[in-house]
Amino acid sequence: MLSSDALSSIAYGTEQIVLVLMTLGSAAIWYSLPIALVVLVLLASLTLSYRQIIHAYPQGGGAYVVSTENIGNMAGLVAGGSLLIDYMLTVGVSVAAGADAITSALPVLHDYNLLISIILILVLMLMNLRGLHESAGFLLVPVYTFVVMTVVLILVGGMRILTGDMPYHATNSLGTTVSGMSLILLLKAFSSGSASLTGVEAISNAVPFFKKPKAKNAAATLGIMALILGIFFSGITFLNYWTGVVPTAHVTVLSQVASQVFNFSGIGKTFYYIFQFATAMILAVAANTGFSAFPMLSYNLAKNKYMPHMYMEKGARLGYSNGIISLAVGAIILLVIFNGSTERLIPLYSIGVFVPFALSQTGMVIKWRREIGKKFWHKALSNLIGAGISYAIVLILLIFRLPDIWPFFLIMPVILFLFYSIKHHYTNVANQLRLQNGEVVARTYTGNTVIVLIGNVTNVSIGAINYARSIGDEVIAMHVSTQETLDKDKEVETEFHTYFPDVTFSMIESSYRDIVRPVIRYVDLVAKASDKNDHTLTVLVPQFVPKHPWQNVLHNQMSIRMRYYLSWRDNIIVSSYSYHLKK
Amino acid sequence: MLSSDALSSIAYGTEQIVLVLMTLGSAAIWYSLPIALVVLVLLASLTLSYRQIIHAYPQGGGAYVVSTENIGNMAGLVAGGSLLIDYMLTVGVSVAAGADAITSALPVLHDYNLLISIILILVLMLMNLRGLHESAGFLLVPVYTFVVMTVVLILVGGMRILTGDMPYHATNSLGTTVSGMSLILLLKAFSSGSASLTGVEAISNAVPFFKKPKAKNAAATLGIMALILGIFFSGITFLNYWTGVVPTAHVTVLSQVASQVFNFSGIGKTFYYIFQFATAMILAVAANTGFSAFPMLSYNLAKNKYMPHMYMEKGARLGYSNGIISLAVGAIILLVIFNGSTERLIPLYSIGVFVPFALSQTGMVIKWRREIGKKFWHKALSNLIGAGISYAIVLILLIFRLPDIWPFFLIMPVILFLFYSIKHHYTNVANQLRLQNGEVVARTYTGNTVIVLIGNVTNVSIGAINYARSIGDEVIAMHVSTQETLDKDKEVETEFHTYFPDVTFSMIESSYRDIVRPVIRYVDLVAKASDKNDHTLTVLVPQFVPKHPWQNVLHNQMSIRMRYYLSWRDNIIVSSYSYHLKK
Repeated sequence: MLSSDALSSIAYGTEQIVLVLMTLGSAAIWYSLPIALVVLVLLASLTLSYRQIIHAYPQGGGAYVVSTENIGNMAGLVAGGSLLIDYMLTVGVSVAAGADAITSALPVLHDYNLLISIILILVLMLMNLRGLHESAGFLLVPVYTFVVMTVVLILVGGMRILTGDMPYHATNSLGTTVSGMSLILLLKAFSSGSASLTGVEAISNAVPFFKKPKAKNAAATLGIMALILGIFFSGITFLNYWTGVVPTAHVTVLSQVASQVFNFSGIGKTFYYIFQFATAMILAVAANTGFSAFPMLSYNLAKNKYMPHMYMEKGARLGYSNGIISLAVGAIILLVIFNGSTERLIPLYSIGVFVPFALSQTGMVIKWRREIGKKFWHKALSNLIGAGISYAIVLILLIFRLPDIWPFFLIMPVILFLFYSIKHHYTNVANQLRLQNGEVVARTYTGNTVIVLIGNVTNVSIGAINYARSIGDEVIAMHVSTQETLDKDKEVETEFHTYFPDVTFSMIESSYRDIVRPVIRYVDLVAKASDKNDHTLTVLVPQFVPKHPWQNVLHNQMSIRMRYYLSWRDNIIVSSYSYHLKK
Repeated sequence: MLSSDALSSIAYGTEQIVLVLMTLGSAAIWYSLPIALVVLVLLASLTLSYRQIIHAYPQGGGAYVVSTENIGNMAGLVAGGSLLIDYMLTVGVSVAAGADAITSALPVLHDYNLLISIILILVLMLMNLRGLHESAGFLLVPVYTFVVMTVVLILVGGMRILTGDMPYHATNSLGTTVSGMSLILLLKAFSSGSASLTGVEAISNAVPFFKKPKAKNAAATLGIMALILGIFFSGITFLNYWTGVVPTAHVTVLSQVASQVFNFSGIGKTFYYIFQFATAMILAVAANTGFSAFPMLSYNLAKNKYMPHMYMEKGARLGYSNGIISLAVGAIILLVIFNGSTERLIPLYSIGVFVPFALSQTGMVIKWRREIGKKFWHKALSNLIGAGISYAIVLILLIFRLPDIWPFFLIMPVILFLFYSIKHHYTNVANQLRLQNGEVVARTYTGNTVIVLIGNVTNVSIGAINYARSIGDEVIAMHVSTQETLDKDKEVETEFHTYFPDVTFSMIESSYRDIVRPVIRYVDLVAKASDKNDHTLTVLVPQFVPKHPWQNVLHNQMSIRMRYYLSWRDNIIVSSYSYHLKK
């Protein structure tokens, strides 16, 4: 299932290559074939080098861990930061491509492309919040359907070409020189196509999910996946070349190829729709890999105090839930910024993947050298090649695609700064909380003063005063009065005294409609007096709890605000008295 | 400034008419001239009838108040609900048209249309949260610039036509019969153009903002505005007809007309860019009217308990802030759903305006009849005409634009249901809070038990125990232990007892990583025991308050959760002990 990320990339891989070549006109499309071949060679070597990582880190490596352990903190954080963004891009690119697959088949929906993408993300988010990974079996269905359908597509296409049923429509025959073709353009096209290689990372991150022997199974999966991907990628690129399909704004290349191969009539039409649907589904499953990888990575970063603790909260999968929600929000923001365009997201996606690729492969080389010594070449060779390829692709992207990838270099320093600020803050707080040797702040108090906020005399306020009397040695009822409501305020005071004749009732006057400031001013005064008497001071905010949690949105805004503002004052404990409604 | 809403509608009014006519081909464009005339006649009569409302409700009427008072609750809520949605659409349509104006002038930004719209909304939101209305003088600049620039546009266009400098390029001469032209299509085009009438409502809502004599000034403003709008609308429609401009996907009709009239070279180019910028700015100001109207309407609805209290919170403009944020979020959601397309938002916008128009005019007729009796015709005539026009437009929309406006009929019942549910809930709660005659729950307690949650022994936990001893007769320190951390937990217990040898230390064991459930189970047990002893029970959650509010996001997730879950238990008061960090 983890292969979905890599396999699904064929839905946009060929198209991305062809799109770049199209700048020279459709005659240049045949170049996609040699480019696809180079991509496949790279895939093979990256696969070999990632098998090394899987064997070395059977507990689940990932670029963050490998880079941190072998190169250093900074390298690890760069890898981790890139991957955080990259998982958002994985989700964004996959759902955007999924929406493209859907709207290619159903053009009437084309205007709603972005909306479809966002809905897909929200559905995936909810499924993951509900604990998708535990019942993930059904996710295999779209993966297998897609694999079967792609095999059928390639077989039908091959048969029809061999039997001469599908005429040769290539825009230009193989090997024709196209004027204006340059190495730069080829490298650009290649860098776009290399986005198809990005799925290799997902498997090495997820080794712990495999059956035992984990590392062996994961490595085998990687091999099989690379083989399938190779066949699919070259098959589709060839079919695209043969049919002479040219990218258009509203229909994906893959959809055009499929509709040509399946002839789009009779039973072929059905096949075409199943194929498009399977494409959309595998892309959704691919987006889902981001939803398992992101929370795990943010958990690891939070454990090392580079990300907020909320990503590693104990119990009830809460930390993971925070990761899942952050990922979904991030992906939606990226989609809105880039208007749901796969074409513009993919260069960023590539740089975000190949930087950690390069770092983790470098880390592996360093590891072998340290562990094995002089003879490390034997083990490190494939990692060296992997690192070389990754650096080369990063370099190509840097030189030829800078107009597309500059946001990466804007975001990364910000992320690194955040990582270090968070780390600094946590260290700082830990120092302040630690008990200093010999210093024990064991002040003893002689009692407690309680201020109860009273609006009207209701069941809530009566309960609150009763509670206040149980904890306090001195109880003060406080009521805020404005000029306009003076008569009503006097009534409240009279009614209050019929129930509690012995409790002090303080009327705080406020000339404007701001009730927070006068309350704080009064509370501060009482706090000073209590401190002198060695009393603690409790401010009790009565509130009621509605029967259903969602009803909270209708109530208690004022007590939330009051608690918030009072929580910043020293020497004051803010407490809520909750009255539970039964209906 | 309030006129901006109406005046800005010329940025899309002509275009909407032409777009519908284009379904018959560009030859049909000349029909936009008679349609524009009809729209102007309607504008005149709507203006007259709205002047009546202004005179009758000098304290600021608006469809909600007028309909509720004169027809009934239900009619008022339909008008109010429509307007709530409609203000979101005002914001959405205006910023989308503003983004169109910008990207028409700067085509390189075209792909970022939606993003530009969203950024505009967020900027308006922040400006309004900061209290824009108090320094609103500078908003007049774009309005005047736009008025001046449009006058220049019409004058230059007129001059060039009269001097023969701008050749006659109309796609078809006036009066030519176009095959396929039907009354249905004309009515459709007319209903699209009538979106330009929607600004009339904004002024009648905002009478309180005018200088005294308010009603007279407001009525005068309405008259002047209608005159300017009439000149602008017919001028631009005529220029569009003369130049034969046809709608295209990426450039607005108004932008094409302006670039033709200003000849787009030399000084004309500068004029063109100023004009486009002024258009975008007046549209932003128009969106801003939504930001003053929405919070006021939601305040009125909240006062009558049909909307959550949070829209009428006292003090610090908080209620208005909630309204402003809700409006911005709603507008952004609408934009994303409709992909930032003015063309698809406008039919909804029209139905959402003309339903409350019709209701408030009906309300006025009823009011005159009740107040004046038999001779009410004299006063009610203009309102009767206004109501008639509004019903007619609603009917046209209903019959010919149903495929575009059906969401309105889906959303309105939901909104009405929510209004009534909220009202029902508030009434229900008020009944439960009211003290029943003779029933006084004045239970007296003999003391208080305090449970303090202790993780580690830090400055925070020591302070918390000190406080707990000041309020409690019995203090229990509670620590949750998991299998994995058993050794560390024993250490915590030992360390705790060196500081507080006399405080009970309860170790709660939990076999899994969920610490909420065991805590609740234990607390429930203690609660039962305390209740028997006539003790209240306080659960004290220690937490620390970082120096800067934003740092809260890095901390205390666990104590927030704990408080949340405990807040649902009866007979337990949850309190936080806050330790303030100094650094």
